[in-house]
Amino acid sequence: MAEKLYLGVDMGGTHIKIAAVLDNGNIVEEIAIDTDTAADPKAVVKEVIQAAKKFKTFSEIENIGVGIAGDIEYKTGFVRFSPNLPKWKNVQLKKLFEQLTHKKTLIDNDANTAAIGAFWLDDKGKSESLICVTLGTGVGGGIIINKKLYHGASGAAGEIGHITIDLDGQKCNCSNRGCIETFVGAKYLVNSVKAELKKSKSVTIDKLTNKNHLLITPEILFNAANLGDKISKDAWKKAGIKLGAFLSIILNFFNPETIIFCGGISCAHKFFLKIAVKEAQKRAFQSALKACEIKVSKYGNKLGVVGAAMLSKQ
Amino acid sequence: MAEKLYLGVDMGGTHIKIAAVLDNGNIVEEIAIDTDTAADPKAVVKEVIQAAKKFKTFSEIENIGVGIAGDIEYKTGFVRFSPNLPKWKNVQLKKLFEQLTHKKTLIDNDANTAAIGAFWLDDKGKSESLICVTLGTGVGGGIIINKKLYHGASGAAGEIGHITIDLDGQKCNCSNRGCIETFVGAKYLVNSVKAELKKSKSVTIDKLTNKNHLLITPEILFNAANLGDKISKDAWKKAGIKLGAFLSIILNFFNPETIIFCGGISCAHKFFLKIAVKEAQKRAFQSALKACEIKVSKYGNKLGVVGAAMLSKQ
Repeated sequence: MAEKLYLGVDMGGTHIKIAAVLDNGNIVEEIAIDTDTAADPKAVVKEVIQAAKKFKTFSEIENIGVGIAGDIEYKTGFVRFSPNLPKWKNVQLKKLFEQLTHKKTLIDNDANTAAIGAFWLDDKGKSESLICVTLGTGVGGGIIINKKLYHGASGAAGEIGHITIDLDGQKCNCSNRGCIETFVGAKYLVNSVKAELKKSKSVTIDKLTNKNHLLITPEILFNAANLGDKISKDAWKKAGIKLGAFLSIILNFFNPETIIFCGGISCAHKFFLKIAVKEAQKRAFQSALKACEIKVSKYGNKLGVVGAAMLSKQ
Repeated sequence: MAEKLYLGVDMGGTHIKIAAVLDNGNIVEEIAIDTDTAADPKAVVKEVIQAAKKFKTFSEIENIGVGIAGDIEYKTGFVRFSPNLPKWKNVQLKKLFEQLTHKKTLIDNDANTAAIGAFWLDDKGKSESLICVTLGTGVGGGIIINKKLYHGASGAAGEIGHITIDLDGQKCNCSNRGCIETFVGAKYLVNSVKAELKKSKSVTIDKLTNKNHLLITPEILFNAANLGDKISKDAWKKAGIKLGAFLSIILNFFNPETIIFCGGISCAHKFFLKIAVKEAQKRAFQSALKACEIKVSKYGNKLGVVGAAMLSKQ
């Protein structure tokens, strides 16, 4: 095989996705294993490598890339902690992989690998500048500049979930107030609906949750909106308006060629994306908005593993 | 002379600064001429070249760079309009210079050339990532990435004056609401004090303006604050708090190595910069704040002309 091959590893809290990926982002072979959150890091890495070795192409793999949530020192491949793997503290993940495989390994946080994945899969590696926005439990981001991941001075670049939207808004996990995450992060989105349900009633949400509002998730709100539920639709609309203001900040500051939304919550895009773009039309520089393609990833669960593989190419 | 030389031209509304600049940003020769705002563009360009030809080093100059306020198409060197030169509409400025000098010429807007100037003069070309914030009539910005000016997809990158700070805030020139410019731009800053003076009295401001509040400028507010005037000091403090929130957005998004303030209003930094940094401490990721040097340019009126020269080196 003339083309180069890379191994991508997407360390999730439930599954670990592993794939052999071509130079252009196409997956050649892939497998997923359950995440053993009780095992120590070395055992997990061994299991990952064992699984990867079943690939027919394993011997041809050049480098390995790993995406993992948490506080990652990308330069040294050191994992300070990972919320998905609570037993992992101060893990030399890069070293572990390199010792066991003798292949160069690069580690980065999952928002960054998602951005690389979106750049190769959705964007086909075309844009000079791209922002990937991960909408999920939190709001994450990754920045591609000149076709490469941009880390900033201390690896903190792309923390776009903590762009302030309301200076006096709700306290955020990060200790700031009114970050975009406090409007569209899963927990906050759900809480805003719970608060609304104390004032108004939703037959649809009651039905979908068996009247147990603790069971409300963004998915329930998506399903309820699909069934015409007003409270859910309003919640998505409000999220869309805030996302529009957020997009304007990105557009006016960074003027990217492409913005791609991904992550679980982005599946509900039909209820918020048009609204967000309309709000951005009111707020952003028109030339910046016109020059930017804003879209939702079509490769949802592949972004992480392909992005991890392509990270190792950098 | 072994080192390369570049000609920088800073097209101001009152003066045009012209300098022969070395590879490292040092000025070798410089001159300023009055801006003839009534003359047509070709006549002005001829006058600039005539002045530059008086430099002993003129024949050694490789390229020419020009910084000018307004709506500039940097790729083609086309000036759609310039607020400083109201007669200039749709001027092929690059072509004019190149026809008259036979030297390659690059044109960019003055916020971008200021950023390049700050990068070479204040930063000595060290930072991989730098944001320059121009505080003046408007709030402008320029972004340096990998030691080069970043233009974005349509040349609109760095419009950081229009980062939203208050979604429901005052209407801004750009048609958005609550941009940082509506808090710290000269006109808005002055207007906020004028509004305050309808409620409270300031003996100092009355003295400095001969009781004619139409004469209030940021400079007057700086002088009044130096004399201990509470209303002026409070105005700078409020501006500092908003600038702190603004810095947090830049830090969390872009995690730059360096942020440099310049422009007329930055001279009053002793009344707002510490406050801004303190506010950013409350809001920004600590690693991003720690990794960033935030300072005020020491090269005020040289930034534009040196930045223009260094632009032509790119």
